[in-house]
Amino acid sequence: MAPVTLAQIEEAAVRLKGVASRTPLVPVTTVTDPGSNTIWLKAENLQRTGSFKFRGAYNAISSLGPEERARGVITYSSGNHGQAVACAAHLLGIPAVIVMPDNAVPIKVDATRRWGAAIEFAGTTSLDREDRARELVAENDYVVIPPFDDTRIIAGQGTAGLEIIADLPDVEAVVVQVGGGGLISGVATAVKSLRPDVAVIGVEPSGGADARDSLREGRLVTWDRIDTVADGLRTSRIGELNYSTIRELVDDIVTVDDEEILSTVGLLAREVKLVVEPSGAVAAAAVLSDRTGLRGAKVAAMISGGNIAPDVLASCLLQKTAVA
Amino acid sequence: MAPVTLAQIEEAAVRLKGVASRTPLVPVTTVTDPGSNTIWLKAENLQRTGSFKFRGAYNAISSLGPEERARGVITYSSGNHGQAVACAAHLLGIPAVIVMPDNAVPIKVDATRRWGAAIEFAGTTSLDREDRARELVAENDYVVIPPFDDTRIIAGQGTAGLEIIADLPDVEAVVVQVGGGGLISGVATAVKSLRPDVAVIGVEPSGGADARDSLREGRLVTWDRIDTVADGLRTSRIGELNYSTIRELVDDIVTVDDEEILSTVGLLAREVKLVVEPSGAVAAAAVLSDRTGLRGAKVAAMISGGNIAPDVLASCLLQKTAVA
Repeated sequence: MAPVTLAQIEEAAVRLKGVASRTPLVPVTTVTDPGSNTIWLKAENLQRTGSFKFRGAYNAISSLGPEERARGVITYSSGNHGQAVACAAHLLGIPAVIVMPDNAVPIKVDATRRWGAAIEFAGTTSLDREDRARELVAENDYVVIPPFDDTRIIAGQGTAGLEIIADLPDVEAVVVQVGGGGLISGVATAVKSLRPDVAVIGVEPSGGADARDSLREGRLVTWDRIDTVADGLRTSRIGELNYSTIRELVDDIVTVDDEEILSTVGLLAREVKLVVEPSGAVAAAAVLSDRTGLRGAKVAAMISGGNIAPDVLASCLLQKTAVA
Repeated sequence: MAPVTLAQIEEAAVRLKGVASRTPLVPVTTVTDPGSNTIWLKAENLQRTGSFKFRGAYNAISSLGPEERARGVITYSSGNHGQAVACAAHLLGIPAVIVMPDNAVPIKVDATRRWGAAIEFAGTTSLDREDRARELVAENDYVVIPPFDDTRIIAGQGTAGLEIIADLPDVEAVVVQVGGGGLISGVATAVKSLRPDVAVIGVEPSGGADARDSLREGRLVTWDRIDTVADGLRTSRIGELNYSTIRELVDDIVTVDDEEILSTVGLLAREVKLVVEPSGAVAAAAVLSDRTGLRGAKVAAMISGGNIAPDVLASCLLQKTAVA
């Protein structure tokens, strides 16, 4: 049985109400056959801090009791989870430390710092950051908020799935990108609990398809070398809770390549008027290039985030798209 | 008394239900004081055809009887109204002719053509286009769908105002850009009918402030020369129905300059993850640069559209913003 229940996701939705943005399900009315209206995008790029990560981070931190809150929270992330933890801690009045790499891009550092979090720089690898976080926890007794393999995180991300079903009750398939697997685990739990007949399809970049391999081989596969433009999905291995959820509830995992991802970023900006980061465009890329085998079905594709460097977006905008 | 009633706007909302997108009111959570949450954006860039114009066009065309529908519709526009009429006519199965300038930009021509409309090219000025439309009406008995000074168009645009009040019942001010005045007339009628205490503020580019001058001088003022980057707001004079509505219901009209408009386009893409055209950013620019005198109030600013040339958006993205 999946490690998170529908009831836990519904409790997360209560915690998030009025704090997280109730993001829209945006119909794609131009790219496909005019007026056919079969693709919707769950616009988590419009979520607080620009990604779905706020849902899990706020759910986890707001679940803490007074003693834990007083200790403060810590996480290790160069990206969206760090920003989300910083913002959630700020809103709850809890001190936060975010361990980031020495070479973190300035816009991500600034976006994290603006929420008042303390930033610790530590090396350049995720191992360096986890080591430094462990040291800081030993010294200061901070509470760790992990990025994906955690029931509170999974339950928080799952609230996006509740919203998809509420907004599009006759949806036939939900397509979600897979990094550490927290988002698809939460969404699959919500969707399959409410509507077992709805397909849930995962999408990975072809340069980091460890979850697809895990699903196919029936064991948790690690990819030692990940090579993809989708920086939010550069995870070598999905979490264990997430692996068990995906095995039980996800129908298939497909892949898209970097060219398709970047051309979809351009297409979504030009045609749908949404700013989407490469990781955020992965599910839409799979649907639009028909990797999902869902042509003609009513599909909701997850737009997981919009935190893209301006120069990368500019170059995607000016490139003509290959898909659709 | 304003020429359009709340009842007419509510009837338009019934016609638009399930056809127009129910666009979100997106909170701005990063630009202002973190967590203060006082600015919301009505994201009509996510509307069908990328602008609010679809609301009025569909309301007008779907109001036609069988005899008028059989005659087909025509409009003269190089921009968003033309696309909106083409799309609405397509959805209703009615032939449409759009008169565009000889030098229309290819992306606007393509966006209009994809809805199956016939395109007539006529000169380079709006006078040329109106003359050609008049000839075509004389020859073919088409029904004209005017861009803004029309009760059905105003009622359609007003549905965006109903949605703002429904989504943010405690809004204190609504800020809307002014071109021909159809959008602000509809929105002001909806908002003031439901909530007379809510301020409605208009915004024009400083290079085309004919509506502000009309409001201040108490007569319909024409600007012979308009100079602004906001191509959707290059109207020399607002409509007469709209003038009487604005006089009665709009509290003030303020202006922003081109630099503020373009830096707001960049800011909205980088921070809010929305692709907004220059005309669409005018109301947000006024709020963010505090031209409205509304600091601290709960404000909804209209994002009227997102149809921006990719190279213009790319250059806004790469420019650091002056406001906020």
